[in-house]
Amino acid sequence: MMLSSGKLTNLMRLADASGRLKMLAVDQRDSMRAPLAAATRRRPEDITYDELAATKTLVAEVLSSHSTAILLDPIYGLPRGITAVGGSAALLVAVEDSPPALLGPSRERKMALIDGWSVAQAKRAGANAVKLLVYDTPEASAEVRAHHRDLVRRVGEECVLHDLPFLLEVVAYPIEEPGEDTPEFALKRPRHTIAAAREFSDPAYHVDLLKLPFPGDLKYTRQFRDAVFDPRERPAVYTLDDIRGFCRDLDAAAGRPWVILSGGVGIREFLANLDLAVDAGASGFLCGRAIWQDVLPLHPDRQAMRAFLASTASHNFDRANAVAERARPWFDHPHFGGWGQIRLQGGGADWYRRYGAPPPL
Amino acid sequence: MMLSSGKLTNLMRLADASGRLKMLAVDQRDSMRAPLAAATRRRPEDITYDELAATKTLVAEVLSSHSTAILLDPIYGLPRGITAVGGSAALLVAVEDSPPALLGPSRERKMALIDGWSVAQAKRAGANAVKLLVYDTPEASAEVRAHHRDLVRRVGEECVLHDLPFLLEVVAYPIEEPGEDTPEFALKRPRHTIAAAREFSDPAYHVDLLKLPFPGDLKYTRQFRDAVFDPRERPAVYTLDDIRGFCRDLDAAAGRPWVILSGGVGIREFLANLDLAVDAGASGFLCGRAIWQDVLPLHPDRQAMRAFLASTASHNFDRANAVAERARPWFDHPHFGGWGQIRLQGGGADWYRRYGAPPPL
Repeated sequence: MMLSSGKLTNLMRLADASGRLKMLAVDQRDSMRAPLAAATRRRPEDITYDELAATKTLVAEVLSSHSTAILLDPIYGLPRGITAVGGSAALLVAVEDSPPALLGPSRERKMALIDGWSVAQAKRAGANAVKLLVYDTPEASAEVRAHHRDLVRRVGEECVLHDLPFLLEVVAYPIEEPGEDTPEFALKRPRHTIAAAREFSDPAYHVDLLKLPFPGDLKYTRQFRDAVFDPRERPAVYTLDDIRGFCRDLDAAAGRPWVILSGGVGIREFLANLDLAVDAGASGFLCGRAIWQDVLPLHPDRQAMRAFLASTASHNFDRANAVAERARPWFDHPHFGGWGQIRLQGGGADWYRRYGAPPPL
Repeated sequence: MMLSSGKLTNLMRLADASGRLKMLAVDQRDSMRAPLAAATRRRPEDITYDELAATKTLVAEVLSSHSTAILLDPIYGLPRGITAVGGSAALLVAVEDSPPALLGPSRERKMALIDGWSVAQAKRAGANAVKLLVYDTPEASAEVRAHHRDLVRRVGEECVLHDLPFLLEVVAYPIEEPGEDTPEFALKRPRHTIAAAREFSDPAYHVDLLKLPFPGDLKYTRQFRDAVFDPRERPAVYTLDDIRGFCRDLDAAAGRPWVILSGGVGIREFLANLDLAVDAGASGFLCGRAIWQDVLPLHPDRQAMRAFLASTASHNFDRANAVAERARPWFDHPHFGGWGQIRLQGGGADWYRRYGAPPPL
């Protein structure tokens, strides 16, 4: 597989020396604001810029040595957190606005880019990759779905222009249903995730890496339904063997290396998810809350927060890294065909003459 | 000290976690071609592109795990060597053409940029810094000296535009003298090197790091003149204490973190140079031939070359790294004032809005 210099250099930086992706997400905005508010018995809107920025910086600082890459948002995360990332972890930067707009009575989610921020700025700022989150479900309106496809294509094209890896996160969500923790939505998760992986592997989107939800909900399996991960009992809608099949189908559908996200589940469930995903061919994880979310209730006790991150959260990370040691290196994904097949696009005596400068914007 | 995001992110990547620079130079062109020719009893011009590219790739591949950063040229080095650099060593890319033009009867050296290559392309390709070499001496013509100053300023400005660290190498050379290995030139080395460090620390040049020759020639000291580093005996023109003073003067003159180069000396002399430079405040090294030059006579025996790099050259590198453990972290240079003083320029809630995109070219 031929890769351009910017894509190749930065893909290598995102992974460990063996090509495995052990990445930390600290780009949460509203999902960090709410627990910080709960911890201090205030309203989410009263959480200050400084509180969010300082929390992100602390998480990045203590956990960066465990990470091959850290994902920050450019608003609260990067300005203070950049020195905490250090020189050994690579830097991923988010480009999507948060929270998404909620349209109409079904409250369908419509994504937009952060106003005033761009792939070009991320590249100039020293990012090793750009991350775009799209909430997408086959049940959304045709208009919003088309808008999301345009958005992904546009970001993909900008990443090609600036020769920067593009990590796309696609997350399904329930429309006109009571919530995500239902037997109905549990049943839809595999199908939606597999369909998204297949669709966004189309070369027209220029995606380099996929960040995907686990293709199922272990809490609705016969084996784990019985209050294993939380105190609630749920009906079983599938078995662990079904889940293994969904993971294999997801791997077959993903035409690019894929990593899983934690999506707010606890560490034990995340480790079980990761184990199954890695068995099926995932190249690692880009995990946030499963590793560090329990630091948030300790806010604003900085000493307690640091102690938690240095002990429990670091241990969580070590356990995830241990599972990811079995992950498929990104370059061993069939799309790339193995390290021995990786070559610089246009490499040779006149590469430097033909390799373009960034385009005018 | 306020630093822009691209400068800060990439300066961190060039160094180890403690801020020390342990960098490998593999950007040699003619100084690699000649020994490869000698090894195979051919003329330098008969050495092929493939021979140069394969040699550079092998050096980078075996030694990258010892390096915080690897310097490649974009012609012979980067196209094949990029995969050998891997994800953990940062990437420096050269922009100057080689060899320099030699003007008039004094054969003064006039530098130019590589035609068809630019700072913009280096940034897009994923480089963490750009390196420019300028041969400069007070004895050169006013015209060539002015040309070199324009060149440095122009590259410095492009590095600001693309928010990429700028490493400037300034090397003095003898004009109208029989060669570099003379008492006369030994006496001039300290003065020329100190003057260059002072001049190019001027903010108008936008230099972030200086790569400098050792400010003296130990082979002309009373202590080392007597065939210590090579079989030849030489007159003493200064003492080791004089050299220590030159190193202190160089450190005082350098308004930016500085590293030393090896300039073709042997490993024992380089380690002695490095030790003295580090004592005076150097932040590490960007060393090429002292570490790996003895691999060249083994060409084209790839097995012997690999064995040499994995044993002797790796050991050389380990020894240099051990000396550099005492080096001054780049951020502890008075220009930056310590890690605690490093801040993102314009950092805060609206950083992302105000941080520019790359300029049109």
